[in-house]
Amino acid sequence: MKPVEIKELYDNTEKYIDKEVETCGWVRSIRDSKTFGFITVNDGTFFKPIQVVYSDKLNNFSEISKTNIGAALIIKGKLVATPNAKQPFEIQAEEVIIEGESTGDYPLQKKRHSFEYLRTISHLRPRTNTFQAVFRVRSLCAYAIHKFFQEQGFVYVHTPLITGSDCEGAGEMFQVTTLNLNNVPKDEEGNTDYSKDFFSKPTNLTVSGQLNGETYAMAFKKIYTFGPTFRAENSNTTRHAAEFWMIEPEIAFADLEDDMELAEAMIKFIIKYVLENAPEEMDFFNSFVDKGLLDRLNHVVNSDFGRVTYTEAIDILKQHNDEFEYKVEWGCDLQTEHERYLTEKIFKRPVFVTDYPKEIKAFYMKLNDDGKTVAAMDCLVPGIGEIIGGSQREEKEDVLRKRMKELGLNEKDYEFYLDLRKYGTARHAGFGLGFERMIMYLTGMGNIRDVIPFPRTVNNCEL
Amino acid sequence: MKPVEIKELYDNTEKYIDKEVETCGWVRSIRDSKTFGFITVNDGTFFKPIQVVYSDKLNNFSEISKTNIGAALIIKGKLVATPNAKQPFEIQAEEVIIEGESTGDYPLQKKRHSFEYLRTISHLRPRTNTFQAVFRVRSLCAYAIHKFFQEQGFVYVHTPLITGSDCEGAGEMFQVTTLNLNNVPKDEEGNTDYSKDFFSKPTNLTVSGQLNGETYAMAFKKIYTFGPTFRAENSNTTRHAAEFWMIEPEIAFADLEDDMELAEAMIKFIIKYVLENAPEEMDFFNSFVDKGLLDRLNHVVNSDFGRVTYTEAIDILKQHNDEFEYKVEWGCDLQTEHERYLTEKIFKRPVFVTDYPKEIKAFYMKLNDDGKTVAAMDCLVPGIGEIIGGSQREEKEDVLRKRMKELGLNEKDYEFYLDLRKYGTARHAGFGLGFERMIMYLTGMGNIRDVIPFPRTVNNCEL
Repeated sequence: MKPVEIKELYDNTEKYIDKEVETCGWVRSIRDSKTFGFITVNDGTFFKPIQVVYSDKLNNFSEISKTNIGAALIIKGKLVATPNAKQPFEIQAEEVIIEGESTGDYPLQKKRHSFEYLRTISHLRPRTNTFQAVFRVRSLCAYAIHKFFQEQGFVYVHTPLITGSDCEGAGEMFQVTTLNLNNVPKDEEGNTDYSKDFFSKPTNLTVSGQLNGETYAMAFKKIYTFGPTFRAENSNTTRHAAEFWMIEPEIAFADLEDDMELAEAMIKFIIKYVLENAPEEMDFFNSFVDKGLLDRLNHVVNSDFGRVTYTEAIDILKQHNDEFEYKVEWGCDLQTEHERYLTEKIFKRPVFVTDYPKEIKAFYMKLNDDGKTVAAMDCLVPGIGEIIGGSQREEKEDVLRKRMKELGLNEKDYEFYLDLRKYGTARHAGFGLGFERMIMYLTGMGNIRDVIPFPRTVNNCEL
Repeated sequence: MKPVEIKELYDNTEKYIDKEVETCGWVRSIRDSKTFGFITVNDGTFFKPIQVVYSDKLNNFSEISKTNIGAALIIKGKLVATPNAKQPFEIQAEEVIIEGESTGDYPLQKKRHSFEYLRTISHLRPRTNTFQAVFRVRSLCAYAIHKFFQEQGFVYVHTPLITGSDCEGAGEMFQVTTLNLNNVPKDEEGNTDYSKDFFSKPTNLTVSGQLNGETYAMAFKKIYTFGPTFRAENSNTTRHAAEFWMIEPEIAFADLEDDMELAEAMIKFIIKYVLENAPEEMDFFNSFVDKGLLDRLNHVVNSDFGRVTYTEAIDILKQHNDEFEYKVEWGCDLQTEHERYLTEKIFKRPVFVTDYPKEIKAFYMKLNDDGKTVAAMDCLVPGIGEIIGGSQREEKEDVLRKRMKELGLNEKDYEFYLDLRKYGTARHAGFGLGFERMIMYLTGMGNIRDVIPFPRTVNNCEL
């Protein structure tokens, strides 16, 4: 008899009811009287635990009663329906094997622990309800993203993590080196002698795979990246992590409208997939983390996303400037308060804001005919604001070179990127989705540290 | 009329034959006479290109004839069956729009280029047949791995890339820092003052997610990681890269036998998925890269993998010591020549070698009752040797602490790992699959630089 997983018992109950089953898992709670006891056991395959009833007919009755929360058990017994109880069934134990005890100092007792405390035991917190739910949703969301793109024939590209160039200068970077910091080799001018470093030059951790991704889009037409990204920003907020995952699709022979259609379809697909595949977890979040969560997600799935240009959006927001901490005017970057106002109060559904002033966007975005704005889009969703940022890319070599000069970028570092405009250039577009932001959106969790298994933030790199 | 992808034209030909279609892509070859011409166009969605016939009825006939290889075109015309030709159909063009020209210095001309040369243009090589095939297979293989684990309810865990500990001392590591190497801050004793670094301590790029992965296996029962891993080894070989991807599943309430069953099922699933989803690419590899490829892969899918202990394997190999460069004896690590001999000559199918001497394996592997060997397994496959290494983990706290002491490991760095043995320890096991090694195995490609989009090796970090 092979152990049956608890998910299987819930999924195919009829198959097992009134039969002998063997299952295993970890004690979530245990209480006993003189002659019998109850254990709830969770094996991590399903959000809900199973109840085990045991009695003093078992020769290790007192040993079982002494086990602590967290202990690992193997249970054999009959699965019995319990129509009058909260749980649908229980196991009447005929044998309980203690696979591994849990010492009395186990940090996860039955009481509720604060998220702050749980962050200090990141190796144990996935054993709690909240983090079981968060990290199962994280896993399902990752798979939904792969499924969405693969089923449409997109090619998944692993863009490099270690990079020799600070492309697009998107943020402060971590340096990667094998030099001995206690004794950095110097060149004749007294500067670091990078010829002695592993790659014979300075290297950093990537801030975006986009430029590399574009090279593959011009070969495969439709690609996506999904990998880690790094920012060495000294921001100690609930939204910033030094290491996070990004998804960056890129499509050729495609414009900004195609890009928005793709983003909208992807968001809807992800939400639907997670709602279908983690209903218990999503109910839990809706009950205990964020009361309006399910309504909000279902509304997003069923809405046609709005469209508004940046210029129109500014006109709208200006009329409400008295409600904002930061007043808007044409040319300013939108703050979260403005983004949320647009999507929650004005549109009451997700909305794409397009055609931003070129000054507040990256050099590679396609210049519109007005010479002032670029074919950029941000997707704003209720409850969070911006969740996706994308653009059509400048496909004209001369325009791109001109823009790079204006911004003082070193063209030599970008020859590979300019090559794409020399050899069979084509309209193309793409966007970036911060994976952790998506998980926060799906779960209602408010701190990025609580949606990353082992978060890395300023001054914090534990385990 | 929306452009149709070339894959769609091949998949659902009947739907389009004798109809007007619009498609787009990049010129692979072009030849013309005075009044008509032929272009083969590839759009990256399918391995095979499409042939386009155009004539001087088009008012831009001479402009089309002047386009170079690599140019981006949009083609409108009728799809016509060509029963007597090599290709099944062609488009008789009614309009050819030049989306983007390709200058005459385009590096990919019709002749065959060496892999060495193509490595110098990693941003363009995915436009060649070989690298289209390699990187589509890479993408499909990644998805197959996710699909395999997700469909069985495994939870995908993103273990951290930046790490504060040199866990298991598995190899030389890259240091990650925001300190200014030209002016490294020093403490009072003249050593690097890491309190000034981003994480307030020395940090490295991970060499394995296993130990972190185990913490999640003890919460979710079945997990897998799939992410980048780094080695700062100064080895300039066809098998070593500084940055590569690894898959590391971990299963609780499971022993070495369960681990081997999982590994065998995974390898078979991946091979089957790729054979089914990339038949054209796999035929190409079989014809042009590695003649015996398909036979070998089909044989693996249809074999029951063998089992042999290390001790038995040594006894077998000893009888053939005259055939080896490195002679074997009990206690030695197996070299590729020995591994291949076992799987190719002795077993003639994949084989698991188990129960290695503890001295040549990692500290966390479960000590067998003999006190000399550990419950490790390596999976050897014909044509390559070791493709997977795994083990049952030592779940007993006292045995693990003793082994760590023997090896001089600092127990303080591993308290989180030892906690797993204090709080509900359970038998568990896992393995690691080097993703690039799997791609080399699937494609027959002989150099790891040719299966990574932008490879990082000693002295090489381009693009």
